[in-house]
Amino acid sequence: MSEIKSIAIIGVGRVANHLATVLYSQGLEISAIYGRKTDLAQALAKKVEARVITDISKPIRTDLILLAVSDDAIEGVAAQLSKSNKGIVAHTSGAVPLDEIPSDLRRGVFYPLQSFSIDKKIVWENVPFCIEAEDDTDLNSLGALAEMVSKKVYILSSKQRKILHLVAVFANNFANLMFEFSDELLEKADIDPSILHPLILETANKILMQRASESQTGPASRCDLDTLRMHREILGEDNIYRTVYDLLTTEIY
Amino acid sequence: MSEIKSIAIIGVGRVANHLATVLYSQGLEISAIYGRKTDLAQALAKKVEARVITDISKPIRTDLILLAVSDDAIEGVAAQLSKSNKGIVAHTSGAVPLDEIPSDLRRGVFYPLQSFSIDKKIVWENVPFCIEAEDDTDLNSLGALAEMVSKKVYILSSKQRKILHLVAVFANNFANLMFEFSDELLEKADIDPSILHPLILETANKILMQRASESQTGPASRCDLDTLRMHREILGEDNIYRTVYDLLTTEIY
Repeated sequence: MSEIKSIAIIGVGRVANHLATVLYSQGLEISAIYGRKTDLAQALAKKVEARVITDISKPIRTDLILLAVSDDAIEGVAAQLSKSNKGIVAHTSGAVPLDEIPSDLRRGVFYPLQSFSIDKKIVWENVPFCIEAEDDTDLNSLGALAEMVSKKVYILSSKQRKILHLVAVFANNFANLMFEFSDELLEKADIDPSILHPLILETANKILMQRASESQTGPASRCDLDTLRMHREILGEDNIYRTVYDLLTTEIY
Repeated sequence: MSEIKSIAIIGVGRVANHLATVLYSQGLEISAIYGRKTDLAQALAKKVEARVITDISKPIRTDLILLAVSDDAIEGVAAQLSKSNKGIVAHTSGAVPLDEIPSDLRRGVFYPLQSFSIDKKIVWENVPFCIEAEDDTDLNSLGALAEMVSKKVYILSSKQRKILHLVAVFANNFANLMFEFSDELLEKADIDPSILHPLILETANKILMQRASESQTGPASRCDLDTLRMHREILGEDNIYRTVYDLLTTEIY
C-alpha cells in the first residue's frame, strides 16, 4: 500500500475545517487549501500551514485530494479537476455515490459519520469513518489514514452508505422528534422538560449493552390495554401526538 | 415539618428492594417489610435490618408506609390498611392517582421516575423523584426524604404525573423503537448496527444543552427534497418504515 502523507483540501466549510485540523494534528502535511471564499481559505491555510490554491483545474501534487464541499457541489468540483492528478480523489459525503467523481481519477470516499451541528469538541476516536475506493491499494491507504484519527473504520459500498444515510434519519432525526414531542407535551402540562433527561440518556446508553428490541419496555410491549386506553384519552383525537402514538403503539404491540 | 425517620415497605419486588436498600443506606430505619411471598420478604428484611410483618390490617408504627406494589394492587392493598395508622401512606407509582389511597389516611405519592429494567447500579442522585401529598407538612416531609437520595425532586399533581407517564412513552419507548428500526434496516443492508451508536449517544446528549427542536437536523428540516425522494425510493412502498418515514418527515418538514 502507498501511504498517504500529504492532503489537499477542497472546501472551507465545517467538514473541511474539522478534517484539515485533525489530520494536521496527526502530523500529516496539508499541502493545499482551495475555497471560493478566499478569506476563509487563507484563514484555514494559516491554521494548518498550507498554501492556498486558486485554480483546481491544474494538477495538484499531493497523495490525496479531499472534496469537502456540499453534496450538490461534488460532481461539479470533481469534473473541474485535472485528469493528470496522481493522488486519490475522495469526497466526504454520506449521500453521494463514488461515481460522481470521474472514472479517470483514482476515486474514493472518506466520510466521517458525525453530526457537526453543534460547536463542541469532537471526540475523533469515536467518529465512525466510512471509506470506499475502487482500487484495493487506495482502500488500504484511506483505511490507514482513517485509523490515524478514529478507532472505528468501516468499508461500505456506495449503496450501503446511501442506506446508512437514510437510517441515520430514524436514529437521529426521528428519535429527536420524539424528544421534541416530549418537550412540548410536558410544557403544556407545566412540567419542567428536564425531568425526562435521565430516562432519555438511559434509553440511549442501553444500546451499548443490548439490542434495542431487547430493551423495549412500556405499556404497548407488555400489552397493558388499560394504560393504552388512558393514554389515548389524555392525548385526545386528531393531533399529531395521537397519530404517532397509535401508529407506533400498534407496531410495538 | 415532621421528619421521616422510619419507613415500612409494603412489597418485595424490584422497586421495593431498590427503595428499601437506598433508604437504609441513608441511615433511615426500615421498620417493617410486608410481602405475600414471605421468603422474599424475609430476604429483604434481613438486608435492611427490618422485621417482617404478616398482617397489614393492624396499625403499623412508623413515619411512612411505602406501597411499592404493582399499579393494579395499590388500591386493594391501601384499602386493607388500618385507618388508625399515624404515618404517611404513599405509593410509588407513576400512573396511579393519589386518591386510590383512602382519604382517611395521610396519603401521598413517592415516585422514582426510573426504568429499573436492567440490572445495573442505579445512580440515585440523578433519579427524578415525583412527590405529592394533600397536606403541606407531609409534602415537605416526603420532599426532604427524596432529597436525601436524589438531587432532582419534583412536586407533581396526580394529573401531571399521569401526563408525565404518557410522555415517557414518547421519550423512551418510541425513541427506542426508532433505534430498533435502525438496527433492522442496517442488518438488512449487511452493515454493523454499532456504526450508529455514536450518533445516537450524541443525539441524546444534546438535550442537556439545548431544546430538541433547536438541534433538529436532517433532510426534512432543511427541506432537501432530492434526499427525501431518494430515501422513499430506498424504503419502497407499503411497509412500516415507509409509513413512519412519511408521517414524521411531514411533521418535521
